[in-house]
Amino acid sequence: MSEERIPVAVVGASGYTGQELLRLLVMHPRVDLVAVTSRQEEGRKLAEVFPRLRRAKGADSLAFMHPDVEAIVATGAKVAFLALPHGLASEYAVPLLERGLKVIDLSADFRLRDPEVFEEFYGSAHPAPDLLGSAVYGLPEFYREEITRANLIASPGCYPTSILVPLVPLLEQKLIDPASIVVSSLSGVSGAGKKADVSLLFTEVNESIRAYGAPKHRHLSEIEQELTVAAGDRVKISFVPHLMPITAGIATTIFASIEGATAEVSEKVSETYAERYRESTFVRVLGEGKFADTKHVVGTNFVDVGWVVDERTGRLILSSAEDNLGKGAGSQAIQSFNLVCGLPEECGLLHF
Amino acid sequence: MSEERIPVAVVGASGYTGQELLRLLVMHPRVDLVAVTSRQEEGRKLAEVFPRLRRAKGADSLAFMHPDVEAIVATGAKVAFLALPHGLASEYAVPLLERGLKVIDLSADFRLRDPEVFEEFYGSAHPAPDLLGSAVYGLPEFYREEITRANLIASPGCYPTSILVPLVPLLEQKLIDPASIVVSSLSGVSGAGKKADVSLLFTEVNESIRAYGAPKHRHLSEIEQELTVAAGDRVKISFVPHLMPITAGIATTIFASIEGATAEVSEKVSETYAERYRESTFVRVLGEGKFADTKHVVGTNFVDVGWVVDERTGRLILSSAEDNLGKGAGSQAIQSFNLVCGLPEECGLLHF
Amino acid sequence: MSEERIPVAVVGASGYTGQELLRLLVMHPRVDLVAVTSRQEEGRKLAEVFPRLRRAKGADSLAFMHPDVEAIVATGAKVAFLALPHGLASEYAVPLLERGLKVIDLSADFRLRDPEVFEEFYGSAHPAPDLLGSAVYGLPEFYREEITRANLIASPGCYPTSILVPLVPLLEQKLIDPASIVVSSLSGVSGAGKKADVSLLFTEVNESIRAYGAPKHRHLSEIEQELTVAAGDRVKISFVPHLMPITAGIATTIFASIEGATAEVSEKVSETYAERYRESTFVRVLGEGKFADTKHVVGTNFVDVGWVVDERTGRLILSSAEDNLGKGAGSQAIQSFNLVCGLPEECGLLHF
Amino acid sequence: MSEERIPVAVVGASGYTGQELLRLLVMHPRVDLVAVTSRQEEGRKLAEVFPRLRRAKGADSLAFMHPDVEAIVATGAKVAFLALPHGLASEYAVPLLERGLKVIDLSADFRLRDPEVFEEFYGSAHPAPDLLGSAVYGLPEFYREEITRANLIASPGCYPTSILVPLVPLLEQKLIDPASIVVSSLSGVSGAGKKADVSLLFTEVNESIRAYGAPKHRHLSEIEQELTVAAGDRVKISFVPHLMPITAGIATTIFASIEGATAEVSEKVSETYAERYRESTFVRVLGEGKFADTKHVVGTNFVDVGWVVDERTGRLILSSAEDNLGKGAGSQAIQSFNLVCGLPEECGLLHF
Repeated sequence: MSEERIPVAVVGASGYTGQELLRLLVMHPRVDLVAVTSRQEEGRKLAEVFPRLRRAKGADSLAFMHPDVEAIVATGAKVAFLALPHGLASEYAVPLLERGLKVIDLSADFRLRDPEVFEEFYGSAHPAPDLLGSAVYGLPEFYREEITRANLIASPGCYPTSILVPLVPLLEQKLIDPASIVVSSLSGVSGAGKKADVSLLFTEVNESIRAYGAPKHRHLSEIEQELTVAAGDRVKISFVPHLMPITAGIATTIFASIEGATAEVSEKVSETYAERYRESTFVRVLGEGKFADTKHVVGTNFVDVGWVVDERTGRLILSSAEDNLGKGAGSQAIQSFNLVCGLPEECGLLHF
Repeated sequence: MSEERIPVAVVGASGYTGQELLRLLVMHPRVDLVAVTSRQEEGRKLAEVFPRLRRAKGADSLAFMHPDVEAIVATGAKVAFLALPHGLASEYAVPLLERGLKVIDLSADFRLRDPEVFEEFYGSAHPAPDLLGSAVYGLPEFYREEITRANLIASPGCYPTSILVPLVPLLEQKLIDPASIVVSSLSGVSGAGKKADVSLLFTEVNESIRAYGAPKHRHLSEIEQELTVAAGDRVKISFVPHLMPITAGIATTIFASIEGATAEVSEKVSETYAERYRESTFVRVLGEGKFADTKHVVGTNFVDVGWVVDERTGRLILSSAEDNLGKGAGSQAIQSFNLVCGLPEECGLLHF
Repeated sequence: MSEERIPVAVVGASGYTGQELLRLLVMHPRVDLVAVTSRQEEGRKLAEVFPRLRRAKGADSLAFMHPDVEAIVATGAKVAFLALPHGLASEYAVPLLERGLKVIDLSADFRLRDPEVFEEFYGSAHPAPDLLGSAVYGLPEFYREEITRANLIASPGCYPTSILVPLVPLLEQKLIDPASIVVSSLSGVSGAGKKADVSLLFTEVNESIRAYGAPKHRHLSEIEQELTVAAGDRVKISFVPHLMPITAGIATTIFASIEGATAEVSEKVSETYAERYRESTFVRVLGEGKFADTKHVVGTNFVDVGWVVDERTGRLILSSAEDNLGKGAGSQAIQSFNLVCGLPEECGLLHF
Repeated sequence: MSEERIPVAVVGASGYTGQELLRLLVMHPRVDLVAVTSRQEEGRKLAEVFPRLRRAKGADSLAFMHPDVEAIVATGAKVAFLALPHGLASEYAVPLLERGLKVIDLSADFRLRDPEVFEEFYGSAHPAPDLLGSAVYGLPEFYREEITRANLIASPGCYPTSILVPLVPLLEQKLIDPASIVVSSLSGVSGAGKKADVSLLFTEVNESIRAYGAPKHRHLSEIEQELTVAAGDRVKISFVPHLMPITAGIATTIFASIEGATAEVSEKVSETYAERYRESTFVRVLGEGKFADTKHVVGTNFVDVGWVVDERTGRLILSSAEDNLGKGAGSQAIQSFNLVCGLPEECGLLHF
């Protein structure tokens, strides 16, 4: 019956991604949250751990449980979101899939098709290489059909979404030179997770702007994998993330050399996006001369995209913004969930 | 006599650059502030307009005066800092120079050697092209000798300093490909000035990250002028500034293709900087693998520089940080002042 | 029919209150936004003025219109929200009420029962004293029944809500001494409105904490009016608002001497709140030893309340938090709207 | 000889108080920093731990040493600053005093005259009660003479300074009712120290305003001790601190009932402050109708004080602002150091 609610579990829900996921799930009209797990919060009510959720459906009664596979299955959950550290996620994905649940994994465990690339970027052998073949990269704008049919979704990282949405259509149409791509991304602090680390204290981050993680941030692996698919040829880019004194949001600026003449490139970019994102509610194309601003997307599932043409140097400059916890993590995972469950893609996600 | 104080005027002192300049001048051991002008604050005491300066030398007694050239000259000032909008600065520079004052101009009026470039980027004919030949670009790290002998100093813009300090030595040594340079700069809001503009309200800037001003920001003109001098050939770059929710500070990230093999480039960069900045107290070279952080330079005259080598793409990634009101404006102007007056370059500037 | 949408107009929608109101109305399941007015934005689409609303229902097509009463009536609107400056609001309220619309006014025009108090605090004669008798103070927690039957709702100010919700029940039960009440409120900058004022620039508010507006802030008039109703006797309090470097949110701390022994006062407070707010979904009582935090209420219609007993001095210390644009303005007005329209009080307001 | 530098040690220098102390000491014209200790940073250079200090006198060469008393004595230090947790400070104070050093302790260990009050507020027996008699409370505005002659200075806490400076003179003159005093203080996050605590993460503090620590914050003990001295009778107050999303700064708002008529109280307050603080460079009296703003004092040793008279309720409302790491900790300790060493009180402290 169409109005039935789908029983859902969230495994590893005590971090910022879990928190945003739960915030959205308690408001989702077709979700029945039946299990939330956390070792450290075991036994505490959802609303106790996340005071913002007091009075939300279920939040005052549902308690965090130990992350035990059998106990999760016993709750009747049909879909499990995994908001766990990489490596640990596959330990849950494998048995949950075997027990018939659909799994939407927000970790990096199943994003890479090649286990060797995983080992190169994550420093350990892939924990479940057999599953890589069946996992689908959970960027609905590019893998809508595959997600609809999948049992295991590898929901993308925060930086990749902000980079792939503006770049993929242009590489597919060969409007830019893949070898010239340079990316500067600016991220809110929640992207670093909820961990007791002196470098993430308010006093260390406030009034501070700094790059980090270059030249080989882990997310490069999945970014280049997907850019390579789009270009039809091996793509390598330079990528520098920066830590910003904001709670949430990523703004990405991309520089790429224009293939051919600059004269009509802006029009072609406009047409390419219009065509590619015709059915993508959550990509908002701002147009030429517009720069995306994180404050218009935080708390939403939208990714905004604008661009300018730098005629003096023959480069196209792209600008995107998203909520790193939203379209970059939690709400994007729910977007896949909607597809997996046969719900409208926008269900429970049209927040502004 | 060595301990004599030099009588100094600040013309147009009510904005953020003027404020920082005054803050530093009242603490400067060899400065006697004899005149501060501002149309809008005329008659008010310095400490009344800038409450932070209460109890500072002279701030409780010196009042803002009307910006009249004769009145300024009458105060006995030997050096005048101009913290005025571009276009207006030259209206004061010309007569003050004629009356024998040394002029340190913080506007854009005398930074460009070619009046046509001025017109292209600033949209009006240069107001005093005859003076361009004698003006010296006030970046002491590159023009120390010229500044010492100059009567008219064109103190650089905030973005240019953060870009030129890391780039110029590498272009001089031909370590990078000039055509490949791409720059992403992240600036605090004070860089936009103290003006009643809705887009600069706390509520509009807080929790917001956004690019602006690309692809042809006005500062590009002086950046490219100086890069061209360094490279010995016409340089054009792509430059995207971003507005950050911090009060002061600029962090700049630069991407450039390495000329030749990447193997020893880091060592060459290190040696180049060590040599080039041997006598430059205010350039702090952090070394490879380090990213500069604005919070370590705000309130100071330092510019910090670090880098990483991106072997995968053959690019060098440079990182710099400065205070946009300090090394990017006010304290940099005082550094030139020290040179002009025969004082030690660091005099009154070693704040941490 | 129950699922029919109610045609709604928002008059004066270009400020922060209007913006939050519109954000909530485009998501409201029973609202059909038919008119938005703004002199300065006339002709521009909603989504153009508020980029966050792109893709929201109606936002890409509905344009701001001139604030003309006949034109508003012609759109078929049944309810009008007025988000106008005080004084101006009544110019629209009077004719719109005459034309049969229900009016929910977010200005101060109809909050005070006594036109002389209005004149004392707002500095001009009340513009429509005849209407004061029929206007209802739009705090549903205290005037639920009256709101349901009213044609003109005077939605409360931001500070009053955060002060009245914790205090009113305790005064009614005579648990505290009315003469001892002292209030310190801390507000986000959006409370000051969207106006081009240098003192509200990011650079002036960031890293700044300051009191303002004491000892006679305008909101005192409605606060004391309602406290007097609760106490059954004239109440005067001391109130100091402070400007905080956050976008939205008010945290209020209240000190009051306990009537009688301190021994069981905490239990009595707990029981009083439980009883008084039994049916008030949007008041979340945190309990003793808990302090309310703005970050858990921003973006919602909740007001959180906690307290501690200061046995050493015989005082009760109350703590509340709300979103100044939410429960302090926009969402509170919609709460009244729901009651006026016979909808469930929570309709369209259960955001977390 | 007057220009000789005094050899100084800082024990426990890795926290925020230590960091600010070091920042000021490296700029102090009469200080020779000969020892800095830290267990966790042992062996690392000052400038490595605090990158802001690169190029400061000694910072590139002086390394953190193990906090060993003999080793400290061996450096020739004449004065030791202790920036250690309470309890631990006295373990160093005792032997260092025995070895003839002057000790300026920034912990709470020697601030209270009564060891029982220490035990009540700090939860353990006082570690060195014999020293309490000779320790002097390091608020130079009230104990200038005693500090000059002392060997052991107990430098005050951050909240106490911001509360005592406005209140003490008024209590001495009996202008306000001691039993009526209520205090709301708003502090930057650095006051909580540099510790890896999730509740102090940027993501938890940003866009958050919350009270904490009431009704019995530890600083109450020293605040009431000094207020009692001023009033000549036992004073108890209500005090609520709040955590603010700023790095440094405390703004304090105080409410107190006026003794006698309100008519001339403002003039009396003005005269009282003028008289009491005639020789106190670092107290800046703003006058009636002015509220102190943290942004004008951060980075300085000033405390600003303003007030308004609330005639409606017969209360005086006081407003003060200071830098919690400056006048509330580091620079205040140096002010005592100057007195102890016979230097001008302002030496090395006139930063703006």
